[in-house]
Amino acid sequence: MLSTMQDVPLTVTRILMHGSVVHGTAQVTTWTGEGAPRRRTFREVGGRSAALAHALREELGVERGERVGTLLWNNGEHLECYLAVPSMGAVLHTLNLRLPAEQLSWIVNHAADRVIIVNGSLLPLLAPLLPGLGSVEHIVVTGPGDRSLLDGCGARVHEYEALIQGRPAHYDWPELDEREAAVLCYTSGTTGDPKGVAYSHRSIYLHSMQVNSAESFAISGRDTLLPVVPMFHANAWGTPHAAFMAGASIVMPDRFLQPEPLAEMIESVRPTIAAAVPTIWQGLLAELEAKPRDVACLRNVYIGGAACPPALMKEFEERHGIRVVHAWGMTETSPLGTLAQPPAGVPDEDAWPYRVSQGRFPASVQARLTAPDGGRVPWDGTTAGELEVRGPWIAGAYYGGAAGEPFRPDDKFTEDGWLKTGDVGTITPDGYLTLTDRAKDVIKSGGEWISSVELENQLMGHPEVAEAAVVAVPDDKWGERPLAAVVLKEGATVDYEALRAFLAERIARWQLPERWTLIPAVPKTSVGKFDKKLLRKQYADGELDVTELD
Amino acid sequence: MLSTMQDVPLTVTRILMHGSVVHGTAQVTTWTGEGAPRRRTFREVGGRSAALAHALREELGVERGERVGTLLWNNGEHLECYLAVPSMGAVLHTLNLRLPAEQLSWIVNHAADRVIIVNGSLLPLLAPLLPGLGSVEHIVVTGPGDRSLLDGCGARVHEYEALIQGRPAHYDWPELDEREAAVLCYTSGTTGDPKGVAYSHRSIYLHSMQVNSAESFAISGRDTLLPVVPMFHANAWGTPHAAFMAGASIVMPDRFLQPEPLAEMIESVRPTIAAAVPTIWQGLLAELEAKPRDVACLRNVYIGGAACPPALMKEFEERHGIRVVHAWGMTETSPLGTLAQPPAGVPDEDAWPYRVSQGRFPASVQARLTAPDGGRVPWDGTTAGELEVRGPWIAGAYYGGAAGEPFRPDDKFTEDGWLKTGDVGTITPDGYLTLTDRAKDVIKSGGEWISSVELENQLMGHPEVAEAAVVAVPDDKWGERPLAAVVLKEGATVDYEALRAFLAERIARWQLPERWTLIPAVPKTSVGKFDKKLLRKQYADGELDVTELD
Repeated sequence: MLSTMQDVPLTVTRILMHGSVVHGTAQVTTWTGEGAPRRRTFREVGGRSAALAHALREELGVERGERVGTLLWNNGEHLECYLAVPSMGAVLHTLNLRLPAEQLSWIVNHAADRVIIVNGSLLPLLAPLLPGLGSVEHIVVTGPGDRSLLDGCGARVHEYEALIQGRPAHYDWPELDEREAAVLCYTSGTTGDPKGVAYSHRSIYLHSMQVNSAESFAISGRDTLLPVVPMFHANAWGTPHAAFMAGASIVMPDRFLQPEPLAEMIESVRPTIAAAVPTIWQGLLAELEAKPRDVACLRNVYIGGAACPPALMKEFEERHGIRVVHAWGMTETSPLGTLAQPPAGVPDEDAWPYRVSQGRFPASVQARLTAPDGGRVPWDGTTAGELEVRGPWIAGAYYGGAAGEPFRPDDKFTEDGWLKTGDVGTITPDGYLTLTDRAKDVIKSGGEWISSVELENQLMGHPEVAEAAVVAVPDDKWGERPLAAVVLKEGATVDYEALRAFLAERIARWQLPERWTLIPAVPKTSVGKFDKKLLRKQYADGELDVTELD
Repeated sequence: MLSTMQDVPLTVTRILMHGSVVHGTAQVTTWTGEGAPRRRTFREVGGRSAALAHALREELGVERGERVGTLLWNNGEHLECYLAVPSMGAVLHTLNLRLPAEQLSWIVNHAADRVIIVNGSLLPLLAPLLPGLGSVEHIVVTGPGDRSLLDGCGARVHEYEALIQGRPAHYDWPELDEREAAVLCYTSGTTGDPKGVAYSHRSIYLHSMQVNSAESFAISGRDTLLPVVPMFHANAWGTPHAAFMAGASIVMPDRFLQPEPLAEMIESVRPTIAAAVPTIWQGLLAELEAKPRDVACLRNVYIGGAACPPALMKEFEERHGIRVVHAWGMTETSPLGTLAQPPAGVPDEDAWPYRVSQGRFPASVQARLTAPDGGRVPWDGTTAGELEVRGPWIAGAYYGGAAGEPFRPDDKFTEDGWLKTGDVGTITPDGYLTLTDRAKDVIKSGGEWISSVELENQLMGHPEVAEAAVVAVPDDKWGERPLAAVVLKEGATVDYEALRAFLAERIARWQLPERWTLIPAVPKTSVGKFDKKLLRKQYADGELDVTELD
């Protein structure tokens, strides 16, 4: 039976119009380092977004569905791009300014960006790449920076402010299908080429509603948001669109991401909530220690992107009265996957196990754990499986490039369309997710998972072990088995039997490694993680001296 | 350009599965008047919902799209119907037990309900209607009540508990289109036949997300909800679906809606939020005055359905520390239309003008004010217009009955598909709605509105006026002009010129009534409202003694 409800699409245009009309007096404040910050009301942002759309359409010829690249810090202009580009029917393509040059070029070429909007301070990064960016015809520059770097670059160069000046503050926004692409964001894939996730108007709208829900970030018109997480990282976790929808004022840090200016902007603009990776908060905590500031305005700090040390959470809470909330997600999940609020009725002192977990899924994120043999793993809080998710803001494919269709690699999507997150973990009967391993680091032994991280943690608890890495190696009978690579403390002598006996008291017998090797140090990647790929290669190449126990 | 996101429908099924799995330990507590309340976990509710779906499908033959009527109080069984019936692809039809018998019969026949699930206590209401309900084949009875009233009624009679007992706690829920109807609710139209609004899975899902947003009811898994507003009134304002989605426990008052049991259940089950019309809260306040109770558990009380006296709001806040929040909506708006939170930065003592207004629209509710001539009225806080709304949970038509298509009467929907609310009011530049009149009570004079309510309020401020009603009467030149019907206080003598002069100091000159009449009392409707229809008829029939001033 048909419903009688209106058929109204969920679009970024609605977020733009709502924020700039109903919450027209809310403010976007962009930090400028020195002097007064740049302040604009949501009404002004709305008018400037319309002017930007006019400029892109009429001056630069941007067409429906075309990608428009941004290489921008978190600032008011980037927010205008966030609103204008999708609303005019084009696709905002946020470029990650931290990527290696080759990856950045690859991505611009893959998306076939014809227009790039860039902060002047990032021209030293962009200009050298331009000869290799065949599709780029227009560069729009905003903010301070040396324009002469673009001399002779071949593209037409525009000044952002001059481009939008004098253009109408209203735009006849097109009617959009909510399933059209709105924003394109590439994963900085550690293996293989980067992969583009094309968020839809629908996914962004629904995700914004979820960010604003009481169980998630709870952003309302009475809040001021400080998004430290970059706007090129999964839409700054969706917070700018969500804040504009809620009418929450926004403090944009621009390129001032160091502890001192962050503390300054918190003290002066007084955000109530903030979002960033743990290292930012670690730095801020040290800064506040060195130079106390009034940061009592902050009620909640959201942390994601990496596991958050409980000590950091406790210190923020005890010293500054700021509650730190842990969340998990990835580019493919928009990114809100889980958020760690404790259940009802649990007193604060008992809440830590819940708060340091990845947390619970919202209704729009369906989750299941899959065993190596493809079977379902129960939500018992102990059996591990690879996390697969489904939902209206979860990717179901990757962007295929200018001509190509979306593509769905088998290692990323299941046959029935769920996203394979590549993370391995457990879920409790009441829905709390704890991630333990990346799937590629887990040992698939006889249809069961063995957690390499757990084995490592236990081994490193042995008084004579300095470091330990465990990797999967091929095994005729079991498919894979663990190889334990151990670094001993100075003066210690190796005794694999004793180490295995130590482990046997702590983990299940069938998980105990047979293969052991002594190494001088665990090889590390450029960001300091265990380089397990290298260890596996060394084993395959016979470069390790392996002892096999019975 | 296509997005790469998964195409996952927004359905009540997802709410059911999420609540009963991720929030399986949350509780539904139904008040039973005497003895222990009935408690079930969300997991049990999920299992019983599946069992109910099996019973309806396999035993009663309920088909996809078929309406299933409920004549139930707010209780756990009604929640099971809320979840099971839409999830199995049928349409939950909530019957308003307060309607006159003829209207109730008309509605059951119009919807062609074949199954009615009824509380035993309501059999005295239902049984006498059954001979006139041709479509009804099955009556499912739950809770105490005299079953013998159904003897010889012609329909098959089932016991709810016996019907679901022993059936599987899992159901192979069908894949649904999110635009299919999920719930059917008729307006208790004061004019003409009742009209059915068929909410979709999509509209209920989106509305639930909005109810749970920080700017609206902010329901999370740490809350316990007390929905006093009946589940046959626009889905109890959408709160049961929203609470199940958020994992918030629910206290169901069943038929115990009197101040004393309400105070008891608040004290014993400790809800954190509650929703009801003002009269309920007025009664509760008096009850707490007479017999103090610990109601500190309540953080927010949501009021709608009628304007809320500020004195009531203040008293709750000052005496009990409970914040009362005002909301506006109607059956056709699911019902969340606006909600009155003050803007950021306004101190409590200055917040009252915002808090007693109807409030602000969420992003999913677009609003505009229309002048009598069809033109747009500016959001200036003073110019009035008829409120028209648009959005994904706003009705765009009415249900046409078993065979018919949805229909769209011209007086309810605009040509471009917006809902005409029939309410007249103003909107401030920052989006605060204040409703002043029903459109049918407003005077359309020369292309402008004159508010009858404002004229009445001003007139009643005159020391010699006991009561006053203002109605529109036809006028050759202006289309309509106000007629002021005045009731004087004892001993006062009439002086229309003086009354007009009094008004002239308070309202715009062009709004001043020319036509005046003295009446012994303002005629009232059965619910105590001014009966303006009767006054207009008396004027048309020449029954009033009218003086016309120059």
